[in-house]
Amino acid sequence: MNRLEVTEKIIAAKVNQGLKWADIAQKVGRSKEWVTAACLGQMTMNEEQASVIADIFKLSEEEKKWLMVTPYRGSLPTTVPTDPTIYRFYELISVYGTTFKELIHEEFGDGIMSAIDFKMDLKRENDPNGDRVNIVMSGKFLPYKVY
Amino acid sequence: MNRLEVTEKIIAAKVNQGLKWADIAQKVGRSKEWVTAACLGQMTMNEEQASVIADIFKLSEEEKKWLMVTPYRGSLPTTVPTDPTIYRFYELISVYGTTFKELIHEEFGDGIMSAIDFKMDLKRENDPNGDRVNIVMSGKFLPYKVY
Amino acid sequence: MNRLEVTEKIIAAKVNQGLKWADIAQKVGRSKEWVTAACLGQMTMNEEQASVIADIFKLSEEEKKWLMVTPYRGSLPTTVPTDPTIYRFYELISVYGTTFKELIHEEFGDGIMSAIDFKMDLKRENDPNGDRVNIVMSGKFLPYKVY
Amino acid sequence: MNRLEVTEKIIAAKVNQGLKWADIAQKVGRSKEWVTAACLGQMTMNEEQASVIADIFKLSEEEKKWLMVTPYRGSLPTTVPTDPTIYRFYELISVYGTTFKELIHEEFGDGIMSAIDFKMDLKRENDPNGDRVNIVMSGKFLPYKVY
Amino acid sequence: MNRLEVTEKIIAAKVNQGLKWADIAQKVGRSKEWVTAACLGQMTMNEEQASVIADIFKLSEEEKKWLMVTPYRGSLPTTVPTDPTIYRFYELISVYGTTFKELIHEEFGDGIMSAIDFKMDLKRENDPNGDRVNIVMSGKFLPYKVY
Amino acid sequence: MNRLEVTEKIIAAKVNQGLKWADIAQKVGRSKEWVTAACLGQMTMNEEQASVIADIFKLSEEEKKWLMVTPYRGSLPTTVPTDPTIYRFYELISVYGTTFKELIHEEFGDGIMSAIDFKMDLKRENDPNGDRVNIVMSGKFLPYKVY
Amino acid sequence: MNRLEVTEKIIAAKVNQGLKWADIAQKVGRSKEWVTAACLGQMTMNEEQASVIADIFKLSEEEKKWLMVTPYRGSLPTTVPTDPTIYRFYELISVYGTTFKELIHEEFGDGIMSAIDFKMDLKRENDPNGDRVNIVMSGKFLPYKVY
Amino acid sequence: MNRLEVTEKIIAAKVNQGLKWADIAQKVGRSKEWVTAACLGQMTMNEEQASVIADIFKLSEEEKKWLMVTPYRGSLPTTVPTDPTIYRFYELISVYGTTFKELIHEEFGDGIMSAIDFKMDLKRENDPNGDRVNIVMSGKFLPYKVY
Amino acid sequence: MNRLEVTEKIIAAKVNQGLKWADIAQKVGRSKEWVTAACLGQMTMNEEQASVIADIFKLSEEEKKWLMVTPYRGSLPTTVPTDPTIYRFYELISVYGTTFKELIHEEFGDGIMSAIDFKMDLKRENDPNGDRVNIVMSGKFLPYKVY
Amino acid sequence: MNRLEVTEKIIAAKVNQGLKWADIAQKVGRSKEWVTAACLGQMTMNEEQASVIADIFKLSEEEKKWLMVTPYRGSLPTTVPTDPTIYRFYELISVYGTTFKELIHEEFGDGIMSAIDFKMDLKRENDPNGDRVNIVMSGKFLPYKVY
Repeated sequence: MNRLEVTEKIIAAKVNQGLKWADIAQKVGRSKEWVTAACLGQMTMNEEQASVIADIFKLSEEEKKWLMVTPYRGSLPTTVPTDPTIYRFYELISVYGTTFKELIHEEFGDGIMSAIDFKMDLKRENDPNGDRVNIVMSGKFLPYKVY
Repeated sequence: MNRLEVTEKIIAAKVNQGLKWADIAQKVGRSKEWVTAACLGQMTMNEEQASVIADIFKLSEEEKKWLMVTPYRGSLPTTVPTDPTIYRFYELISVYGTTFKELIHEEFGDGIMSAIDFKMDLKRENDPNGDRVNIVMSGKFLPYKVY
Repeated sequence: MNRLEVTEKIIAAKVNQGLKWADIAQKVGRSKEWVTAACLGQMTMNEEQASVIADIFKLSEEEKKWLMVTPYRGSLPTTVPTDPTIYRFYELISVYGTTFKELIHEEFGDGIMSAIDFKMDLKRENDPNGDRVNIVMSGKFLPYKVY
Repeated sequence: MNRLEVTEKIIAAKVNQGLKWADIAQKVGRSKEWVTAACLGQMTMNEEQASVIADIFKLSEEEKKWLMVTPYRGSLPTTVPTDPTIYRFYELISVYGTTFKELIHEEFGDGIMSAIDFKMDLKRENDPNGDRVNIVMSGKFLPYKVY
Repeated sequence: MNRLEVTEKIIAAKVNQGLKWADIAQKVGRSKEWVTAACLGQMTMNEEQASVIADIFKLSEEEKKWLMVTPYRGSLPTTVPTDPTIYRFYELISVYGTTFKELIHEEFGDGIMSAIDFKMDLKRENDPNGDRVNIVMSGKFLPYKVY
Repeated sequence: MNRLEVTEKIIAAKVNQGLKWADIAQKVGRSKEWVTAACLGQMTMNEEQASVIADIFKLSEEEKKWLMVTPYRGSLPTTVPTDPTIYRFYELISVYGTTFKELIHEEFGDGIMSAIDFKMDLKRENDPNGDRVNIVMSGKFLPYKVY
Repeated sequence: MNRLEVTEKIIAAKVNQGLKWADIAQKVGRSKEWVTAACLGQMTMNEEQASVIADIFKLSEEEKKWLMVTPYRGSLPTTVPTDPTIYRFYELISVYGTTFKELIHEEFGDGIMSAIDFKMDLKRENDPNGDRVNIVMSGKFLPYKVY
Repeated sequence: MNRLEVTEKIIAAKVNQGLKWADIAQKVGRSKEWVTAACLGQMTMNEEQASVIADIFKLSEEEKKWLMVTPYRGSLPTTVPTDPTIYRFYELISVYGTTFKELIHEEFGDGIMSAIDFKMDLKRENDPNGDRVNIVMSGKFLPYKVY
Repeated sequence: MNRLEVTEKIIAAKVNQGLKWADIAQKVGRSKEWVTAACLGQMTMNEEQASVIADIFKLSEEEKKWLMVTPYRGSLPTTVPTDPTIYRFYELISVYGTTFKELIHEEFGDGIMSAIDFKMDLKRENDPNGDRVNIVMSGKFLPYKVY
Repeated sequence: MNRLEVTEKIIAAKVNQGLKWADIAQKVGRSKEWVTAACLGQMTMNEEQASVIADIFKLSEEEKKWLMVTPYRGSLPTTVPTDPTIYRFYELISVYGTTFKELIHEEFGDGIMSAIDFKMDLKRENDPNGDRVNIVMSGKFLPYKVY
C-alpha cells in the first residue's frame, strides 16, 4: 500500500458518495483549499484530521496512517499540464513569469514569495458580464541572504 | 529588428535610467502588472500607450511600432523555470494543480478560469511575522459548451 | 475505479457491439463530435446523457457516476502524437501556427479563439478527385484585457 | 543568406509599412491563408508570386529567389507552443485528437485527412454573444493501402 | 481488452508455435510487409484477413474484432529507438533527411512522398562481399496545393 | 570557419546559381544521393571531389579543405523532424519499425542492415494514378557476433 | 509472456540461487560478457545455449523459446542512465566523444567502430594504488561507402 | 573570449595546417587520447603543455591562458549523439550498460569504474577479416563507502 | 520479485509500525544517512546488516537477499524532482553549480568531489530565528589524471 | 547589454588577470561562496559590493549597474549537468534525494530546507587517504502551513 492508492480510494469514494470538498473541509475545520490538497495527496494531516477523513471515506487504520505521512508532492502527470483548467495557470506563469519577478523585486528587493509559508483562497466573484474565479494568494516574502 | 530586440532595449534602458515599473505604469495610466508585462513583450500596446513608452525609453519610430504588434507570447527560456522566484509559481501549480481544478469545478461546474479575460494585482501585505506577497487573480469563468 | 477504466470499458464494448458514434450521438441528442469526445473521457455528461450511455454500454451505477465527473483532459499518450491520422493535425499547427495567429490578430485584434466556447463539425465533402474531410471549427473570439 | 532571414525581413517590413495580409494576398491573387503561410516561410512561391512579394517588400533578386525554394517547414520554436493564440489549437488536438480519429475512420475507413492536399479558410462569424473565429478545413481523405 | 493485448498474444503465440511471417502472409494472401505490420498492430484487417489470423493464432471472436479496428499507430516505445536494428533506420533519416528532401523537390517540386499510399518490399540481395538487405519503398508523390 | 558555414555557403550559392544536384553529381562522377549528402555536410569528399565542388561554388582553399574533413553527422535540427517531407520517413519508422526488425531477423537472423556500408537510389516511378517516389535502399547485413 | 518477464525471472533466480555470471558463462561455453548480456535480454541464444540457461534457472519450454528470439535491445530505463556505475560510461562518451571520433578518423579514415561485429573483455587490473577495471573493446572498422 | 572560441580556433587551424593529433601529442609529450581531448576543450593543460599548443596553433597569450583553465566539460551538442561514429559508443552503453554493472559488481563488489582516475588507448588491430578499432580503458575501481 | 518491491514493503512496514530511521540505524550500527539510503534501495547491505533489517521489517529470506544485491541507483521518478523538499537541493545545484566548480578547482585544481567515497551528516542547528537544517558533506577529492 | 555579458566579461577578465575568488571575496568583505556566485550572475550586489567588483574588473558604470539588478537565476546550460564536477552533486540528489526528504521530515516534520535563507562553506579537509572536499550547508527549516 502507498499514499497514491489511498488518494485514489478517496477520490473514488467521493465520486460514489457525491460529497463536496467544502463540506469535507468544514468537518475537518480547515480551509477547503488545504483540505482538498491534503485529500489529493499533497499535504500532511495530523491524527485528528486524518481521523475525520478516515471516518468520512471509511478508510482502514493503515490507510489512515498514510494520511499522516509527508507525501512525495507533485500532482500532475506531465511537466506541462494537458488539462485546460490547469494549463491556464501554467500559461499565466509563461506569460507573466518575468512580470511576477520584476514586481516582487521592485517591491521587496531580491527574494521570493514562499510556496511553503503560503495560503490561498479561491472563490466566486459575481460579475454582470459573467462570474469570475477569484484567487487570493498570500506567501511570505523570503529575502536572499548575503553571507 | 523584432520585438525581442525592443524588449531587451527597454530592459537595458530601465537598468540604466533607474526607473520603476510603478512609475512607468502611472505615466501609461494602466496597472503596473499590465504595463510591466507589456514592456516585457507579453502584451500589445495601442498607439497612445506605445508613445508614452517610446518617450520614456527613447525608442525610434520603428521600435515603437513593434510595441503595437501582438507579440509571440511566452517569457521563459525553459519549460520548467530555473529562476527560484518564478519557479515557486510553477511549484504551486505542481502541488495545487488538481486542487485548483477540483474547486473550480465544484463551484462553477465544468470549465476554466480564463487567462485572457484576466487581471491581477500584486501587493505587499504587512505582517508582524514578516511581510507577505499578496496576489489577487481574477479571471472570467468560461463553461465548456455542449453542442 | 477511475474515469480511464470507464473509457476503456466503453471502447471495448463499442468494438464488441459494433456500434457507430453517429448512432450513439443521436440517442444522446447531441452532436457526434461532442458525444464521441465525452465517451472518450474528454467531456462531462449530465445525468440524462450519462444514463443513455450507461444504458447502451451496460455500465454500473458507479461507472455512470464517473461520466458526470469533470475529467482530467488530454487524450494523447505523447506530446507529439505518433498516430498518422492525428499527427496530420499537429503538422497543420506546426506549419500554419503562425498563420493562424497573424490572421486572427489581423481580423480581431489581440486575443484568441476559445477552445472552451467551441464547437466543430466533421463531415464528408464529395469531390470528383477523391472525397475530402471537411471540418468546421467555431470558437468565440476572446480579446486580451487591458487593465 | 537563408530563407529565415528573408522571412524576418518580410515581417519587419510589414510592421514598418503597416500592411495587411488580406491586401497582400489580393495582389498575389491567392487566398490570405496560403499567402500568409508563404510569406512566413512555410510555402513555396512561383516566379510570378515571388515577384509580387519582392515588389511589395523591396526584396533583392537573391531574396526573391529564396521565396521560390521549398522551405524547411515548421513555424514554431517549441514542441508545445507557448503562445496562447496558437496553443489553443494544440489543446484542441490534445482534447479532440482521438475524436478526430474515431470520426474520420467511422466515415471513411482507415486513412487520414491530408495536410498536403489541404486548404482552409479563416473568417469572422458574427454572433450576438460575441463574434467567433470560424475556420473551415478541407483535406483530401487518403486511404491506407493494403498490398 | 484492447489491441495491444491482442498484439502481445499474437507475438507470444508466434514464438510458441515457431511460425514465420512469410508463411502467415501467404495464408492471408498479402505481402509479408503488410501482414507483419498488421499483426504487430499497425494496420487494419478486413473480416476475411482477420479470420485467417484468428484461425492461425487461436483468437477469440472478440480478439478477432480488434484486428478490424483501426489501431492507434506507433510501434516504438521511445522517440529515438534504442534497438540497433531499428535505430539504423532512424540514423538514415538523421544523416540523409535533408538529402531526401532536396532530391524529392528537385524531381517533383514541392510536396511529399506519401506514407499512406505506400508499399514496400524487403528482401535478400546476394553479394559476394556479404549479403545485403534490400528495401524498395514506393510512395505516391503528393504535391502541396496552392489555393 | 567550420563545416556548417561551408554547407550554408554551398546551399546559398546553389539557390543563387539555380543549379541542380543531378548535374553537380554528374560533374563529381558519383550518384546524386551521395553527392547531395556530401554537399549538405554529411559525407567526406576526397581531394578530387572537393576540387570539383569548390570550382562549382567558388569556394576558397580553406573552405575546400573543410569538405575533406569527416563531418559531425546529423542534418536535422530536432529529434522528431518538423518538415513534412522528412517527417514521413520518420513516420515510416514509427509505424514499420518493428516490422523491419521482424523481417530482417526472419530472413537473416540476429543482426542489422548497415547504415554505413549503404547506398540508395531515389527516382521517379511513373504511375497512371499519379507518379510515385521510388527509393531503393541497400545495406550490408551485419550479424551480431557471439564470443 | 514476453522476453522482459523471462529476464526478470532469470535475475530473481540468480539472486536466490547465489550464482555467478562467470560460472554460468563457463557452462554455456562463451565469454562472461556475452552470456551476461544474453541473460539480461540483450543477445539471442541458440538452442544449445538456451537449454543450458533453461536448465540452470529452471525455465519452462516456452520461457526457453523466448531466449532464442532476437530481443528488442536497450537495457536502460532512461536516456541518461541514473545509476552511477553505468553513468560513468555515459560520462566518458560525453567527455571523450569527439576524441573517439577524431582518433578513429585519423587512423582509419571516415567510418565507425562496429557495435555489432564487436566483442569486449572486462577484467581486474592489479595496481598498488588500488585495483582498476580494465575493459578491452574490439569492433570492426566499417568505412563509409562512396557510391 | 571563452574556451569554446579557443577550441574552435584550434580545430580550424588544424584543418588548415593539415596536422595530425598523434604528431601534436608527441610534441606535448603525452598520449594522443589525452592531448586530443585537451585540445577539444575537455582537459586542463599546464603552462608547459599550453605553450606547446599555443606555439603550434599560433595562439595569443590570452588564448593560451584559457587552455590552463579547467573547462566546463561535455563535448556533445545533444543528449543522444547524432553522429554515427559517436553514437555507436552510446549504443554500447544502451545494450551493455547492465552487463557492465553486473560484471563490475561481481568482480569488485559495490562501486564504480572511475572516469576521473582513468586512461585509455585507442589503436588499430590488424585482422584478416578487416582491421578493428581496439580500445583499452583503465579506470580505478572506487568502492562505495559504508558509514 | 525485485528490489523495488522490497523497498516498497519496507516503507509500508515503517509507516505501519511507526518506526524512526534514527532508531533503525542504531540497531544496524551505521549512520542514519547511510541506513536510510540503504533501506530506500540505494545502498548495498552485507549479511549482518540485512539480517537486522529483515528482522525489523519481517522480511522473507528471499527479500533479505535482495538487500545484499547492488541496486540500480536513482531514487527519483523525474529528471527534475517535483517534491519541494527535494527540489530545493536541485535548485542549489542550478544556482550554485558553477560556484561549486570554481571553488573546488581553485582549492584543489582540476578534479571532482567523489560521490562514491562520500559521507554526510544531516542534523538540526538551533537558531533563535528558527532552527536550521545543517548538512555536512565530505567527499574525497579526485584529481583528473594526465597520461 | 545584459547581465550575461557582464558575467562573461568578469570571467574572461579573471582568467586574464589570474585572480582568485578568495582574494576577490576578501576585498568585497563577504564569503567566497556568495561572492563567487554573485560574480557568476547568481546573486544581487549592493552599490558598495558592485563598486569593488567594478573596480577589480574595470567595469563601466552601466556594467556595474547590472550587478545590482536581481538576475534570472540558473547557472547551467542543461537540465542534467554534463560537467563531471557539477554532475556529482546532481548524482547525490538522485541517489540521496529520498533520504534527504525522510530525514528532514523525521527531525523537523513536514517542510523544507530553505535554499533562500541559506549559506554554505566549502573547504579542504585534510585526510591521510587523500584530502577531501568538505561542504557545510545551512538552510532555515520552513514548515508547511496548515490553514
